Amino acid sequence: MDFSRMCPKYESAAELLGKKWTGLIIRVLMGGPKRFKDMKEQIPDMSDKMLTDRMKELESLGVVKRTVYPEMPVRIEYELTDKGHGLQEVIESIQAWGDKWM
Amino acid sequence: MDFSRMCPKYESAAELLGKKWTGLIIRVLMGGPKRFKDMKEQIPDMSDKMLTDRMKELESLGVVKRTVYPEMPVRIEYELTDKGHGLQEVIESIQAWGDKWM
Repeated sequence: MDFSRMCPKYESAAELLGKKWTGLIIRVLMGGPKRFKDMKEQIPDMSDKMLTDRMKELESLGVVKRTVYPEMPVRIEYELTDKGHGLQEVIESIQAWGDKWM
Repeated sequence: MDFSRMCPKYESAAELLGKKWTGLIIRVLMGGPKRFKDMKEQIPDMSDKMLTDRMKELESLGVVKRTVYPEMPVRIEYELTDKGHGLQEVIESIQAWGDKWM
């Protein structure tokens, strides 16, 4: 492995996972598609603004897919993409290390 | 798993790994104990101040051990602790996901 410079893919992935609430949001979505209010219920300490910002970021990265169902009232659901599901192993790995050492 | 609140152990671990240069520093140290200048040589894009700050942080977290050899001139070496070596699997997991998806 070349250590002489940063790997931008590693750094981007680690930076994403290191942001507050991101791991928890992804874990909640691993339980299946969720509406905004479902997520708020499961993570009550997180502000609406924070959840909105994080969801936009995860959507722009292709980790989360947002679907609008044209019902009355409109229903919006968030779910993990394949890219998002791929984070399960990573998050479990971080958790295992944290549980043992932190 | 309880999703209702953040797991501070997870968040601390993820935040540590998400800091710029940290992954690279740990990877370099996985090759064995290093002196400050060895690390600088392997990561030339990183400033002295950044490396100093990161090493202090990793030392305070018990990820890195700093040993001073009372020679002339004094020799200072950094090496991973068991806690630090435990990050190998985590870093590989982040890298694998980044390589595939980022």
